[in-house]
Amino acid sequence: MDTLSIQLDKNCSVPMYMQIANSIEKLIDKNELSIGDKLPPIRKLATKLDVNNVTIVNAYKHLEVNDYVTAVKGSGYYIKDKKFKKIVPSDTTKEYFSSIQNDDYDYEYENIKLMTSGQIEISENAINFASATPDPSIFPVDIFKSALNEVLDRDKGFAFGYQESNGYEPLREALSDYLLRSNSIKVPSDFIQIVSGAQQGIDIIGKCLLNPGDYVITENPTYSGAVSVFKSRDAQIVGVPMLQDGIDTDILEENVKKYHPKLVYLMTKFQNPTTISYSEEKLYKILKMADKYNFYIVEDDSLAGLSFSNLSMNTTLKSLDTNDRVIYVKSFSKLLMPGLRIGFVTCPEIIVDKFMMAKHTTDISSSGLIQRALHIYFEKGQWENHLSYMKNIYKSKYDAMVYELNKLEKYGITFFKPQGGLNFWLTLPKELDATKLYLECAKKDVLLVPGKIFYTSKCDNMNKTIRISFAGTNVDEIKAGVAIINDIASKLINKTTKKTYLTPMI
Amino acid sequence: MDTLSIQLDKNCSVPMYMQIANSIEKLIDKNELSIGDKLPPIRKLATKLDVNNVTIVNAYKHLEVNDYVTAVKGSGYYIKDKKFKKIVPSDTTKEYFSSIQNDDYDYEYENIKLMTSGQIEISENAINFASATPDPSIFPVDIFKSALNEVLDRDKGFAFGYQESNGYEPLREALSDYLLRSNSIKVPSDFIQIVSGAQQGIDIIGKCLLNPGDYVITENPTYSGAVSVFKSRDAQIVGVPMLQDGIDTDILEENVKKYHPKLVYLMTKFQNPTTISYSEEKLYKILKMADKYNFYIVEDDSLAGLSFSNLSMNTTLKSLDTNDRVIYVKSFSKLLMPGLRIGFVTCPEIIVDKFMMAKHTTDISSSGLIQRALHIYFEKGQWENHLSYMKNIYKSKYDAMVYELNKLEKYGITFFKPQGGLNFWLTLPKELDATKLYLECAKKDVLLVPGKIFYTSKCDNMNKTIRISFAGTNVDEIKAGVAIINDIASKLINKTTKKTYLTPMI
Repeated sequence: MDTLSIQLDKNCSVPMYMQIANSIEKLIDKNELSIGDKLPPIRKLATKLDVNNVTIVNAYKHLEVNDYVTAVKGSGYYIKDKKFKKIVPSDTTKEYFSSIQNDDYDYEYENIKLMTSGQIEISENAINFASATPDPSIFPVDIFKSALNEVLDRDKGFAFGYQESNGYEPLREALSDYLLRSNSIKVPSDFIQIVSGAQQGIDIIGKCLLNPGDYVITENPTYSGAVSVFKSRDAQIVGVPMLQDGIDTDILEENVKKYHPKLVYLMTKFQNPTTISYSEEKLYKILKMADKYNFYIVEDDSLAGLSFSNLSMNTTLKSLDTNDRVIYVKSFSKLLMPGLRIGFVTCPEIIVDKFMMAKHTTDISSSGLIQRALHIYFEKGQWENHLSYMKNIYKSKYDAMVYELNKLEKYGITFFKPQGGLNFWLTLPKELDATKLYLECAKKDVLLVPGKIFYTSKCDNMNKTIRISFAGTNVDEIKAGVAIINDIASKLINKTTKKTYLTPMI
Repeated sequence: MDTLSIQLDKNCSVPMYMQIANSIEKLIDKNELSIGDKLPPIRKLATKLDVNNVTIVNAYKHLEVNDYVTAVKGSGYYIKDKKFKKIVPSDTTKEYFSSIQNDDYDYEYENIKLMTSGQIEISENAINFASATPDPSIFPVDIFKSALNEVLDRDKGFAFGYQESNGYEPLREALSDYLLRSNSIKVPSDFIQIVSGAQQGIDIIGKCLLNPGDYVITENPTYSGAVSVFKSRDAQIVGVPMLQDGIDTDILEENVKKYHPKLVYLMTKFQNPTTISYSEEKLYKILKMADKYNFYIVEDDSLAGLSFSNLSMNTTLKSLDTNDRVIYVKSFSKLLMPGLRIGFVTCPEIIVDKFMMAKHTTDISSSGLIQRALHIYFEKGQWENHLSYMKNIYKSKYDAMVYELNKLEKYGITFFKPQGGLNFWLTLPKELDATKLYLECAKKDVLLVPGKIFYTSKCDNMNKTIRISFAGTNVDEIKAGVAIINDIASKLINKTTKKTYLTPMI
């Protein structure tokens, strides 16, 4: 389709790109353009209509956003089937979006496009192993509602005034006490900074400490949301592989010597996505390294507290940190409710003022109302009650997952038993490809996350990994969901085996 | 004081810098060090104690944070008088903090230190003309409380789940309707992005659009919080002076040609701090320029809607924007309640996806609970009710301000009558210095903001300007406060006159 009948009115108040987009929409509605048809090349249409190239780009972008066309990288824009539902923006889609933004795996672009542009339909009843977000039905809504009303009756308008940028002082004190009680972390309330969730905490750390060109070392694989933050500061990311007891400290030290990183970003409990927890020996080793080579460690500790083992798992880098090297970031999203949008960061004394100023220029302050309600919630001991309630619920899901996932071992699909957290990390045999498994499962309404989106750089086995979360599923869904994975894995392996068998015969 | 008797225990678990700080604290408590004493130079003490320089820096920083010592730039650390109370972190202090971070007016550093280190005592009953934040007693707390409870009863746990990164759809629709109704701005809800306040909106625009070295043009003077954001992205700031009907478009065009800015940041209604509103002619001129030279305009419209004149003042750049050049940022902090931490941004279609991703990496999403309650508030027409209630209250304060400030004219202190907003912008005669006036007023518990903190670069008359806000004061405080300013101005002018008179006599 190299020509299109489009009439433009240059005196009309509707912008040119909208006039063009509207004309193309009409052609599609009248079936003069149909599924799979390619739109004219940008320059060609621009020349024909006597407008700037950017006007055509804007018109095509508009059509793409409204699901009329799909962009195929390096090729052009194609008419889509309007029948396809738009995908529910699940965590999968979101993680994919951020991975598209971050990675350079061009070869996977097509698959991802297929998924995110809604060309695979996913029903709202899908079994969602992709989301690590808890089921809203277990949130302590009534208790929190009482706390909110208590605050409003007590503080009136002040609950809606500006809160101090570093946070509501009584909440910071409650958090300081809690850290000491639960993790032996000694941090005075003055060095605790309230943030609107862990993601913002990481974002502000980047704002405070990173200059363009600085190096940041992360685990590989790691949480893509943190990598996005560091890249948005034009930092260089270096990923270091994981061993069974934490990051490979030999490779870490080599890279520290080579790159002199400003920050090392780590998740020491139930690491996302690998689910590995660090040995105490390794924690000490890393702290020594931080002193020797003078870098800060960002310890993202979102899942600590959610241990299903009888072993104490409360030692963190921060609890061993005698030289103020560790910036500890804690979210309440996974253990309490993500919608609170409240988390906190402990700052080394030397950057505490700088951090507060950076928070101020980021969003002035986090919600005072929610901070005050959370303070009441802590004071009444409801946080600890909720944590043990959550642990009971998750423990039974965890056990169901272990039982079901063991059934996949016959295909060579193995996993690590984390003893806590909300995720499992599967390793696939050479016959299985994670993207393929993921796409086939999605077609059957079972959502997984292919492990490769968590990698900071290309890596041999990254397409042999899958992250599977049980936070948002119940035991029945776990049974049904793993059975579907089982079924698909079986078919995919048989196909591969047959192919391998037949090839030498030809 | 070049030597200090400090004993260190290198095997002790207390970090070295804390041991040093604790020793110095003890010396102060025992009066072995007294007010005004200088601490030893960093290197000297480091050599003596056989520790790193950074250990001493950390120790001194700790003492500074805890109000034991004060840092004098280029000189060293001095023992402070412990009697002085720590200053209440008012907006003045906060604005000062951000100005210290941003500006390079080293010559003013001492004054600022004096203020922010608490060496001027300010009581909690001070008349606060520095804060542009409304008085919490006029917030619609009960109505909002009902809305919150309505949401919790209706949505239960879902009110605390993750909200979509671009915001709660029904709220975005309500805002789209409101923009059309009140400002003739046509923006579909898909192009509205909810943010946690205007500051975050500007921060995310920076994240989306700015690369290190990019140029941003702002009004001069302007809102320092926006400048901080752009600088945090390593952008270069170019300030363009203001005329009575808006920015000087001739100088703007010269600078646009010279620097090719990515963004131009403007406040077209009751500009902060000059209180000037743009003429419609000027708005058209700027839009044409944006098309011609291909830049985006960030229009920060926090105070629009708060007009006390009978003239319609609803025309904004966005309402005239036919080519999708304007990113419109709106806060509810001044017109509703700052503690909501909710605002919104309208995005040109071409960056809407990018903006949503940048929001996602910033803090995932803004509070779903507050967004849902705000939606109910809008749906019930309570926003419009509150706006006319606020206008009535502010109008009487505005009138009182005009009446009182007119009394300062006899000293040559003049001001512009903005017909809306929450601020006045005073220009001082050559005999008066704004920093001096500000410090003397602060001593009498009247807080002003010296205009110079709003300037992006040095400027001839910047120390002849003062911003004075009436948002948080009542009519009695306005009378009493301006009377104190009157008194101090009179004394300062007499002193200057006397000095001028005496000098030639010597």
